Amino acid sequence: MISGIKNKVAIIGMGCTRFGELWDKSEEDLIVDAYTEAAKDAGIEINDIGAAWFASCFDEVNAGKGGIPLARALSLPNIPVTRVENFCTSGTEALRGACYAVASGACDVALALGAEKLKDTGYGGLPDFGSVMGSENMFYLPNLTAPGMFGMVANAYFSKYGLTREEGKRVLSRISYKSHKNGAMNPRAHLRKELSMEALQNAPIVADPLGLFDCCGVSDGAAAAIIVRADMAKKYRSDPIYVKALQLSLTPATGIGHQSWDGIHFESTRVAVLQAYKEAGITKPRDEISLMEVHDCFSINELLTYESLQISPMGKARKDIEDGFFDFDGQIPCQSDGGLKCFGHPIGASGIRMAYEIYKQLQGRAEPDIRQLDRDLKIGLTHNAGGLCGSLVCSVALFGKDL
Amino acid sequence: MISGIKNKVAIIGMGCTRFGELWDKSEEDLIVDAYTEAAKDAGIEINDIGAAWFASCFDEVNAGKGGIPLARALSLPNIPVTRVENFCTSGTEALRGACYAVASGACDVALALGAEKLKDTGYGGLPDFGSVMGSENMFYLPNLTAPGMFGMVANAYFSKYGLTREEGKRVLSRISYKSHKNGAMNPRAHLRKELSMEALQNAPIVADPLGLFDCCGVSDGAAAAIIVRADMAKKYRSDPIYVKALQLSLTPATGIGHQSWDGIHFESTRVAVLQAYKEAGITKPRDEISLMEVHDCFSINELLTYESLQISPMGKARKDIEDGFFDFDGQIPCQSDGGLKCFGHPIGASGIRMAYEIYKQLQGRAEPDIRQLDRDLKIGLTHNAGGLCGSLVCSVALFGKDL
Repeated sequence: MISGIKNKVAIIGMGCTRFGELWDKSEEDLIVDAYTEAAKDAGIEINDIGAAWFASCFDEVNAGKGGIPLARALSLPNIPVTRVENFCTSGTEALRGACYAVASGACDVALALGAEKLKDTGYGGLPDFGSVMGSENMFYLPNLTAPGMFGMVANAYFSKYGLTREEGKRVLSRISYKSHKNGAMNPRAHLRKELSMEALQNAPIVADPLGLFDCCGVSDGAAAAIIVRADMAKKYRSDPIYVKALQLSLTPATGIGHQSWDGIHFESTRVAVLQAYKEAGITKPRDEISLMEVHDCFSINELLTYESLQISPMGKARKDIEDGFFDFDGQIPCQSDGGLKCFGHPIGASGIRMAYEIYKQLQGRAEPDIRQLDRDLKIGLTHNAGGLCGSLVCSVALFGKDL
Repeated sequence: MISGIKNKVAIIGMGCTRFGELWDKSEEDLIVDAYTEAAKDAGIEINDIGAAWFASCFDEVNAGKGGIPLARALSLPNIPVTRVENFCTSGTEALRGACYAVASGACDVALALGAEKLKDTGYGGLPDFGSVMGSENMFYLPNLTAPGMFGMVANAYFSKYGLTREEGKRVLSRISYKSHKNGAMNPRAHLRKELSMEALQNAPIVADPLGLFDCCGVSDGAAAAIIVRADMAKKYRSDPIYVKALQLSLTPATGIGHQSWDGIHFESTRVAVLQAYKEAGITKPRDEISLMEVHDCFSINELLTYESLQISPMGKARKDIEDGFFDFDGQIPCQSDGGLKCFGHPIGASGIRMAYEIYKQLQGRAEPDIRQLDRDLKIGLTHNAGGLCGSLVCSVALFGKDL
């Protein structure tokens, strides 16, 4: 049996702010908003919380270092408050910290909260982005932006599987088309506009072949989760959501840009998901996963992820995408909330924002008259991917309704 | 019963580099050195490690963000590698992450490693220290340095308990006198020099009343620990060290500089230690604690900590200090390795460096012919304190030889 925390902990409350250009909100405001919704949803008081985890990536341009921004914003009652930072998986790391603490017996109720305010400064608001990323990376970064890296990924994929630029761009646009359609229904999303396939394919190029709508936006936002022991969960609510798996993998030397990278898959996603499926006991993911939120920082990453998650066969995601397999009414709806595409990526918040969508959909409470998936949902998956310069960290979490 | 992880996990191997001005070592070199010693000590291979935690505070001037520096330096095998950052408790946070993971069943063997290289840049190597600390703090920091804050603490303490400046300085110098004596024996320490009481008391003033030798140095260093389930520990070694308690408290609004701070104690230390004693079942700390490593970033912090830990009665640490209670041959040796005073404070490393000393002393393996405490040691305590501008985060960990 694989090690893990399957069925040891449950989520009993979640909160998620609207994401967007929130000029009128400080990061502390967003923390308060996300927490308040989660606490109300769980029916807990602040003094019930035994420990908290705070995810933020760019503390330098945000509310500061350590657990202090979270503790201050909420006036937390002298409990442990731990900051985790692991690139784009930071939000999921906060969730993981809270889940491990509860599963270990260290506390009964834990808070995971992620927040990031990027619009005031952008990712590049720092005087020297390269140096912020550390010694080794400053030699790469000035010439290797995120869109540039994922543009390389798209070209590598097209080349490997014999797609022309036009074919490739159409497939990628179909991914964003679906996400924009979903995001348009979601009051919490930043970008709420349906876009035509024509508009998507003809958008200005950011890093060839990726156009403007292949890239997620830059937003402010926060999201929160309240975690308890699984055997306590029904005391708080009749429909808790159980953590079925929570896995992470950091591959130091096979990511985008590394000489050993094959250009068509992310090893860290593959490793994390294999572990997660094993932990949850999932053998046929294409049949068993009900819905997914994957890390669509760029449309090409969503495409690769379908394959790395073993939902689509390697090289065959194109068919699923064009068949509408991942659409809102498809077999496995993906980004039913609009994804990073429509939410943007306030880094600390994203992993928990994804879990929020899974949580609400599994409970049948995702804006019921507007965008609740009208079917029996069993297992939801979230996926994050981040890193830089050949090193990639990916997380996969699985959530379910039943013990 | 208080929640906790008492006796659930054990340390089976540790490593610690020499601390100092290590111009010839990169942070990656330090990571490799600390890990190599720990892995050899534990008798494990790199593929045995299920997950890792990496502590670094100033990623901006170090090897970079997230878990990547650790994963890269050691070529870790695609496992989860999580970065934690919580000011001066960062090292203990890495230990805490690893302990929770093992105690939760998420993995069987976990690595905690902290590293920081500060000599190349100093704490102030960043273009705008205030902004790095986040929005709220930039209004305070330009005028409130760490020595300045602890100078205020010393004056507040002297005033409260009626010590003249000369009496106060003599007490503080006595603390540093003891630490320098201990550090001089330790090949891993940065500053290895005994100092006379006269030299200590007449040192140049840094922030009145604190002189040069009331302040810890700035160093490079790394330390590592290998954690396994307690019931597996004896498979690895006959003398594992068990975690008896691991508690942390972040008080958002009672630390140095906050208007509600009383000037004579640290509430977060008090809360963390009360929880830790409860978790470990310690009722008479003065009788039950065998040795301690406390956060002596400044001598006055060590003094306050004696009281906050309930070893000395409030306001009475002076007598214990002057009686030699905390000396190498005293009742509770404190900073037997030399402390931050002689090691400096490479932030990510310090908490684990402290645990290293406790681990080795409890096992009777602390340079046996030179500086091993010649008595039966049962319980060791480590303590960290960090934060800024009225918010303070403190950790207390207890370690023991027997289950």
